[in-house]
Amino acid sequence: MEWLDEVKWDREGLVPVIAQERGSKDVLMVAWMNRTALAATLERGEAVYWSRSRRRLWHKGEQSGHVQKVHEIRLDCDDDVLLLEVSQLGHEPGIACHTGRHSCFFRRLEAGRWTVVDGVLKDPESIYR
Amino acid sequence: MEWLDEVKWDREGLVPVIAQERGSKDVLMVAWMNRTALAATLERGEAVYWSRSRRRLWHKGEQSGHVQKVHEIRLDCDDDVLLLEVSQLGHEPGIACHTGRHSCFFRRLEAGRWTVVDGVLKDPESIYR
Repeated sequence: MEWLDEVKWDREGLVPVIAQERGSKDVLMVAWMNRTALAATLERGEAVYWSRSRRRLWHKGEQSGHVQKVHEIRLDCDDDVLLLEVSQLGHEPGIACHTGRHSCFFRRLEAGRWTVVDGVLKDPESIYR
Repeated sequence: MEWLDEVKWDREGLVPVIAQERGSKDVLMVAWMNRTALAATLERGEAVYWSRSRRRLWHKGEQSGHVQKVHEIRLDCDDDVLLLEVSQLGHEPGIACHTGRHSCFFRRLEAGRWTVVDGVLKDPESIYR
């Protein structure tokens, strides 16, 4: 498939992928995809990433129920980063982070410290039973 | 500096950095930073990246004038991705992409093709003289 060939996969066959929430436009997380993950994402209409730690495909939400419905897939000018527009399902407001927070970017640099500025919406122990 | 040590730099000493526009919340681009670039970004209050192609520090806008004023720096839960909140200066609306577009993510997957959906705001030849 030509559109898959146009993506500039890195030496490990991966590209970084940003998930941005439709509506709020919050950046929820960054994960990675390989060819198979990207093709699966398009087919399912839900985000399927490549887990670098577990070295397998990871249908986001498969355990937590926090599935990401994918509305749009964009590619950047260098062909090596993807941007997904998603709805973060399974909780309101959406939880993308494994810590039970809305977004993985919950720490901000303040006076030389990474300071937690966003709260936990759901105890991760009750998310991953 | 401790906060720099908390970032999980990759084998090449880099992390991906997302620049998101204050106000519009548009994702403008993704670039890379090393320790020096991140420290310089904080000090200047303007985005300084590491150019992987030119293998040198790159003060965004040094040539184009399209400087990014940095309001906030966030780190994700895995300590390996940064998110900047920026104002994209030098043109109204802001131009982050070297193609003269607002954002580097100007192509969308439509019916199996990466389709250009955002227009050029300024001819790149007049940006990079």
